[in-house]
Amino acid sequence: MAKELKNYINGKWVVAENSGYLDVENPSTGETLGKVPLSTEAEAGRAVAAAKAAFKGWRDTPVAERAEYMYKMLAIMKENEEELSRTLTSEMGKSIPDARAEMKRTFQNIEAACSAPMLQQGYKMLGCARNIDGEVINLPIGVFVAISPFNFPAMTPFWFIPFAIVTGNTFILKPSELVPMTADLSAHLIEKIGLPAGVFNLVHGDKVAGNSFIENPDVAGVSFVGKSATCVEIAAKCAAHKKRYQAMGSAKNHLVVMPDYVQMDELIRNMSTSCFGCAGQRCMASSAIVAVGDEMYEKVSTRFVEDAKNFITANPLDPKYANEPLLTGPVITAQAKDFIHKMIETGVKEGATLALDGRGIEVPGCEKGHFIGPTVFTDVKPGMEIHKTEIFGPVVVILKVDTLDEAIKIINEHQYSNACSIYTQNGYYARKFKLEVEPGMVGINVGIPAPVPFLPFGGSKYSMICDIKMQGQEAFRFYTHDRVVIERYWTED
Amino acid sequence: MAKELKNYINGKWVVAENSGYLDVENPSTGETLGKVPLSTEAEAGRAVAAAKAAFKGWRDTPVAERAEYMYKMLAIMKENEEELSRTLTSEMGKSIPDARAEMKRTFQNIEAACSAPMLQQGYKMLGCARNIDGEVINLPIGVFVAISPFNFPAMTPFWFIPFAIVTGNTFILKPSELVPMTADLSAHLIEKIGLPAGVFNLVHGDKVAGNSFIENPDVAGVSFVGKSATCVEIAAKCAAHKKRYQAMGSAKNHLVVMPDYVQMDELIRNMSTSCFGCAGQRCMASSAIVAVGDEMYEKVSTRFVEDAKNFITANPLDPKYANEPLLTGPVITAQAKDFIHKMIETGVKEGATLALDGRGIEVPGCEKGHFIGPTVFTDVKPGMEIHKTEIFGPVVVILKVDTLDEAIKIINEHQYSNACSIYTQNGYYARKFKLEVEPGMVGINVGIPAPVPFLPFGGSKYSMICDIKMQGQEAFRFYTHDRVVIERYWTED
Amino acid sequence: MAKELKNYINGKWVVAENSGYLDVENPSTGETLGKVPLSTEAEAGRAVAAAKAAFKGWRDTPVAERAEYMYKMLAIMKENEEELSRTLTSEMGKSIPDARAEMKRTFQNIEAACSAPMLQQGYKMLGCARNIDGEVINLPIGVFVAISPFNFPAMTPFWFIPFAIVTGNTFILKPSELVPMTADLSAHLIEKIGLPAGVFNLVHGDKVAGNSFIENPDVAGVSFVGKSATCVEIAAKCAAHKKRYQAMGSAKNHLVVMPDYVQMDELIRNMSTSCFGCAGQRCMASSAIVAVGDEMYEKVSTRFVEDAKNFITANPLDPKYANEPLLTGPVITAQAKDFIHKMIETGVKEGATLALDGRGIEVPGCEKGHFIGPTVFTDVKPGMEIHKTEIFGPVVVILKVDTLDEAIKIINEHQYSNACSIYTQNGYYARKFKLEVEPGMVGINVGIPAPVPFLPFGGSKYSMICDIKMQGQEAFRFYTHDRVVIERYWTED
Amino acid sequence: MAKELKNYINGKWVVAENSGYLDVENPSTGETLGKVPLSTEAEAGRAVAAAKAAFKGWRDTPVAERAEYMYKMLAIMKENEEELSRTLTSEMGKSIPDARAEMKRTFQNIEAACSAPMLQQGYKMLGCARNIDGEVINLPIGVFVAISPFNFPAMTPFWFIPFAIVTGNTFILKPSELVPMTADLSAHLIEKIGLPAGVFNLVHGDKVAGNSFIENPDVAGVSFVGKSATCVEIAAKCAAHKKRYQAMGSAKNHLVVMPDYVQMDELIRNMSTSCFGCAGQRCMASSAIVAVGDEMYEKVSTRFVEDAKNFITANPLDPKYANEPLLTGPVITAQAKDFIHKMIETGVKEGATLALDGRGIEVPGCEKGHFIGPTVFTDVKPGMEIHKTEIFGPVVVILKVDTLDEAIKIINEHQYSNACSIYTQNGYYARKFKLEVEPGMVGINVGIPAPVPFLPFGGSKYSMICDIKMQGQEAFRFYTHDRVVIERYWTED
Repeated sequence: MAKELKNYINGKWVVAENSGYLDVENPSTGETLGKVPLSTEAEAGRAVAAAKAAFKGWRDTPVAERAEYMYKMLAIMKENEEELSRTLTSEMGKSIPDARAEMKRTFQNIEAACSAPMLQQGYKMLGCARNIDGEVINLPIGVFVAISPFNFPAMTPFWFIPFAIVTGNTFILKPSELVPMTADLSAHLIEKIGLPAGVFNLVHGDKVAGNSFIENPDVAGVSFVGKSATCVEIAAKCAAHKKRYQAMGSAKNHLVVMPDYVQMDELIRNMSTSCFGCAGQRCMASSAIVAVGDEMYEKVSTRFVEDAKNFITANPLDPKYANEPLLTGPVITAQAKDFIHKMIETGVKEGATLALDGRGIEVPGCEKGHFIGPTVFTDVKPGMEIHKTEIFGPVVVILKVDTLDEAIKIINEHQYSNACSIYTQNGYYARKFKLEVEPGMVGINVGIPAPVPFLPFGGSKYSMICDIKMQGQEAFRFYTHDRVVIERYWTED
Repeated sequence: MAKELKNYINGKWVVAENSGYLDVENPSTGETLGKVPLSTEAEAGRAVAAAKAAFKGWRDTPVAERAEYMYKMLAIMKENEEELSRTLTSEMGKSIPDARAEMKRTFQNIEAACSAPMLQQGYKMLGCARNIDGEVINLPIGVFVAISPFNFPAMTPFWFIPFAIVTGNTFILKPSELVPMTADLSAHLIEKIGLPAGVFNLVHGDKVAGNSFIENPDVAGVSFVGKSATCVEIAAKCAAHKKRYQAMGSAKNHLVVMPDYVQMDELIRNMSTSCFGCAGQRCMASSAIVAVGDEMYEKVSTRFVEDAKNFITANPLDPKYANEPLLTGPVITAQAKDFIHKMIETGVKEGATLALDGRGIEVPGCEKGHFIGPTVFTDVKPGMEIHKTEIFGPVVVILKVDTLDEAIKIINEHQYSNACSIYTQNGYYARKFKLEVEPGMVGINVGIPAPVPFLPFGGSKYSMICDIKMQGQEAFRFYTHDRVVIERYWTED
Repeated sequence: MAKELKNYINGKWVVAENSGYLDVENPSTGETLGKVPLSTEAEAGRAVAAAKAAFKGWRDTPVAERAEYMYKMLAIMKENEEELSRTLTSEMGKSIPDARAEMKRTFQNIEAACSAPMLQQGYKMLGCARNIDGEVINLPIGVFVAISPFNFPAMTPFWFIPFAIVTGNTFILKPSELVPMTADLSAHLIEKIGLPAGVFNLVHGDKVAGNSFIENPDVAGVSFVGKSATCVEIAAKCAAHKKRYQAMGSAKNHLVVMPDYVQMDELIRNMSTSCFGCAGQRCMASSAIVAVGDEMYEKVSTRFVEDAKNFITANPLDPKYANEPLLTGPVITAQAKDFIHKMIETGVKEGATLALDGRGIEVPGCEKGHFIGPTVFTDVKPGMEIHKTEIFGPVVVILKVDTLDEAIKIINEHQYSNACSIYTQNGYYARKFKLEVEPGMVGINVGIPAPVPFLPFGGSKYSMICDIKMQGQEAFRFYTHDRVVIERYWTED
Repeated sequence: MAKELKNYINGKWVVAENSGYLDVENPSTGETLGKVPLSTEAEAGRAVAAAKAAFKGWRDTPVAERAEYMYKMLAIMKENEEELSRTLTSEMGKSIPDARAEMKRTFQNIEAACSAPMLQQGYKMLGCARNIDGEVINLPIGVFVAISPFNFPAMTPFWFIPFAIVTGNTFILKPSELVPMTADLSAHLIEKIGLPAGVFNLVHGDKVAGNSFIENPDVAGVSFVGKSATCVEIAAKCAAHKKRYQAMGSAKNHLVVMPDYVQMDELIRNMSTSCFGCAGQRCMASSAIVAVGDEMYEKVSTRFVEDAKNFITANPLDPKYANEPLLTGPVITAQAKDFIHKMIETGVKEGATLALDGRGIEVPGCEKGHFIGPTVFTDVKPGMEIHKTEIFGPVVVILKVDTLDEAIKIINEHQYSNACSIYTQNGYYARKFKLEVEPGMVGINVGIPAPVPFLPFGGSKYSMICDIKMQGQEAFRFYTHDRVVIERYWTED
């Protein structure tokens, strides 16, 4: 029988007070991997209470000592890379090479947090006025919560865990109920590094637990990654509850190809792995290609469709494909598959040309899997639903424009504003593009312009409903308050 | 007849489309200083449209050129310091020395913005991966609005104007309808520096205009200073409208006196000017004194009440008092005076000792003025309304505790968390205090721990409903987006 | 009779104790503009004593007050821009448009120093160990001296004056004895801003005064700009005398033209103004063009020589040429002219082709002027003297290579390593170039890659014999010591 | 027979070309621990050539990959902590607890270097002028050498190794010939982390090798820790050879005790461990106590001498004392012992009172050891040789002054200016002290104000003959050159 996952609260594994268990499904096979409890508000409250109780002692631990735990966390996660990779693949469906790439980013987030003794430093102004000095001290704030999404089961929790903890806060993870096994494994590894009880906690559940954190006055801040509409709701609720928040939302990432580009092999492969890797379920996946000029449009359309056919739609745990980079696994759920099918039908109805249809693919032995193969629409116009909507599947739309200005306009007028890239060898185009587009992450000849964890990560406008990005210096800012101290001593008495 | 103020939109002074005019009152004399229009939503929208149209050109102006305008702004504001001081005093009621101090901070905010060419710089990471570089560029975002309060008619607008503009955004000021004359004068001075039309705009009005800015999709961000409850509302609304925001709220700033302190003359005067200057209407004013130990409580209570009697309650424009630092002017409105009277009555009912009663003071020739003299309650307990409420008048409560820990507890359990100070010569107490209290601004032997504009300004918890503070480096952060660019060139083709 | 210049020591203009006076010559006309005293060691010592005495009071003046003087300095310098421009042109010989460009950079250096309250801030680490905090405070050090060169009579002193002073040090300028009139005028303007006596001092003289500063134990640091060989001497002497130093030396700045470049008009003009402006006497002037490929070499050689003929060799104060950008004025002295002539002869002897010969130009009415017109050598090889030597005149050598790698090799093997530029539209070439060349300043499509004062300025290797550059953040570093303070309080006693 | 140490060059252990071998002596027992080769100039040159050849490949390795090696270095050093501790103790003589403390600092230096991906980032200025951007990129420079001293055999090499390497430079260590065993062990551990050949090299030797590095044109920079007079020589030589350098020199660290101080137990023990730990051979050891006021002077003198008697003078490897913190081991050589004896005699002749005489102590079984017990002089005056000289042994001088100003004067007039501390509970004294003393490291109630590796480390004036300190951000600055790039693209062609 499938294992019932527990919560990790105050240094102990506990059976969750819950409103039921959900089956955790392998999206390739339909097999049940485990059972995840839907924790109640009371259960969530216990985690908050534990984290709150642990705060003062942890805050007062010197930052270099707190960082020691991060070195241990890094070591134990690295030692278990393969098991983590297989676990996340089994419940999420991405390829093993993708899972390993995810683990690398996970490690680098912990590494960035290891820099805390160098980065969690305030500043000091002598002589604000005669005999008066000022200083800014970066202090931890209290209990933080992250509500993480399904598409990077290992990495997204670690956008938060190491930074929150190393800065002196205490922390609760509520992972996506669709991929709780990786979080469970990660928490078991974290358990071994010996953090004081209550510093790190894991609470499984759905929106009930999630919302209860947002409404709990003892929670100082919440991070969320998900749909833009939910981001806005959560942001407004956090503001109303006087909390810090980060809310990273939906995306429609455009790739612009300039007519000067000649490295066609690199170009096409760079684009196709961005579009079809992870079955298009990366928030940094590209899903719209904008070719500038008739000639480039023809060339890109033709070759992109050809290259898409090189992708294998298969169970990523099939030993045959253990090192296969061109693998498109299943999408996360049957509902997701239905939605994508519906969007493909919409595209056809809207008059786009379905140049490659990924529906109806059968993966032998995986009849219950949620597979869709690479799908490409050409002749797409900016007004169409398939261009406006985040499909979150291996579905790509290709648009044609005449000029770079038009391409930029399409990007800036799109409701989502996460990332975009240009392919060009020309320095003028590259500079114009990076300055004039509005998304928060911009690539030049890079299909997935996801910043390494030593740089900030985040979109703009409707794709990021908050002010402070994730990763890098920004993560340190989110998790600390800049207290200003003004000091004077008149005389020696 | 009193002058009807105009709006300044797109480089022109225009008669506001309005729903009526309010009289601007001199709170010392009741005289009408001018008439302020209550701009309509359509009028506000025109300002937004103008600012939006001006954005691209202004954004593309090199930062050093934008900074040149700040040097001019600084020069023209300094040249008109006396007129600005008198204007703000006439409509707000603070003393002329206080007004000059306010002007000094105003100038320093502009100076901090002059640093833009040095501070609006992003960063650069070579080798994110082999042959891939990353950079973070700090870009302006669009149209920003500030909704400023009545208590610092000159300075609070300049917490925003210079930083918003120098970073390349365009800007709209909606000043408090109680003190629009200073904003009008400031805008006339700004007009002379020759900014491109639409970069700076002034729209008079009340909540109608304020809210319309928050709801306008072309506004990128809003700054607000006012009551905490309004801050929460505005923050939630801004989040729901996908905007950046800053919202600085209410305060109850505590001064803790440790038993070791012996410089009693400096102590008492430092506290009384903090409490009674500006009639207690500074957000950084102290209004609660916490004495540690019986002996210090007795000494502080007695001497503080004595010193309070040295304050003159008078019309600040009375030439006799042009350089009088110990002047308590009127509170801003008749309603404010009523509220304060009611709070004094509440204090008496709650059982606090009214050691000095500032009610009933008559200022000859100023019968219509809203005067209240210094008022002191002793024997105050943490549960009382007069301790929980932000009275925003010259009313001080004095509490006694036995230990520093108790004093810190009172501060941290108070709903507001703006600023606080300790008086001690002892390094241990000073360090413990600054690390353990929760307000965002902390003083050591400083009655008003207001950071100079080269450092951040802002409270915490219910006193600051946002993540990014004002002034200093933080102001540059609020007004820019950190876009990340990831760049690669494969080959020379 | 020509005016005898005075020294400015301790707030007073004094007749220098001197070993004689030198005539200051207008290099266009030979006319004597003034007489500059060669101050003795004793005189220099008096300036040091005055600066030392002023140090403590100035150091303890709050940084924002010190910055107020910079705002005044900026204003008074701007008001006198035209007189400064004409003065520097009269003694140095550059064109009036060049002089104005120099003034702009001068102003921006003062502006960068105005940022001191934001930039002269240290940092703070809480919890170095349990209950132990650390802080780094940026303190001024004492008396600084700058020994400035002739080619930027206004700007180079201001690479040092504002930064040294605003950070709280006291300062002595020893300007080049060839161009003391601009320094005299600048000092008279600085006098008017009312700095405390001894904070800024001016001492005229030659190497005698210069060396005496280096050997004076009360001087904390010395900045020097001049020939590389002198830099090395001065650096070693400063090290031996336990002083900070900056020493910026000689240059041979290369411009590389890639075959892909098509904007030939902009290219040629950009190169020619870099090479012939200021008669080639800028340390950032380009004097070596490296064309990649036969075709580009032919095109560049031909068109560059053509464009060189558009330059007018004339007296820059001739009213006809007040706004003439294509003007080549005189070189600084008769000796300089002789040296350049000798180098031209050398080039001919070495076998280079003298494609344009600027010798023998006569400027009517300026028979005593030191004029040389634009001079171009083609067919130049890396081994030649005219390529190895810094000629510091309007003499350009053009080399041909086959690949970018060859061009980079020529640059990196040259003894000087100040600046270089590439002309290309290709992002790959641009990145390769900026990463692989060794000079400290690199341009991409920029003939004079001189950083604005908000960025650091300085070469590398034999062109900069020190660790800390000038301008921007680096200037703040040079003029402050980072003291570390480690603090603990055990108990409340 | 004692092992002959080898050099580690280009990834291989090689028998050094040498001018002879020196015996490495255990200073407690006189036993020979090994034989260290005195490498020739030719041998040193081979290491430089190897390091130079390795530079390009290492420089182009992404910083996060370079940092991976630092994580491995940290892990392997931690795993071998005990062996490293015993090795360093056996050749240097400090106590095992001291050796472990040294190892902790060693690890933290590696940790600080692990932060490279976050810290080795340049900056970026958009719009230096219209359409022109600037960026500052922090590039490695080439081959660096460190010449490390005997007193911290493990830590001082790691002030340099990890920072030099992680930033992309290649590196050569020349350890003190007195303590080469720890360096040998460290290099064997570093070997295991698999750095590319030539990135890290170890060359044993004396001044011959040291000087040859300074004179080698392929060495970009040299770090040295030793006597101030040698620092000045090395600095001048490096300047003359156009090299970067760091040179940290001698010290006489003062501890000032204010009359208000009452925690006498902590005070006395804090001072005595600072003075007698490591037999007074730490550069951060205190060796001069300045008591303010007669009463405090009496109290401190008496109690300090009493506490000194609690120290055990013994062989630190004696198992009895494995965890003994109050142990004074031998001084490093017979010559050092002779010098210290001579200084004690000098003190007696000068008229100071020899309150405790550490001469003549016998450690059973260690007759060949260089032991001197805690030695205290009272009635010392600032003019005396024992106050002016760095004795580098367990010899303390106690001085009396009447005021804090006098104490500060003594510190600031001393030739050395490394570190100093004050003991006071009074915030006014603490601030006055930290601002007015001149040494580079200042403690408040801290006997050894040695900054953690996340902060800079370095004295001032004659104690630090360079501009850039070690550790923290400064280490990153020393090992990188800030290249400025100015970029423009005119048009799309």
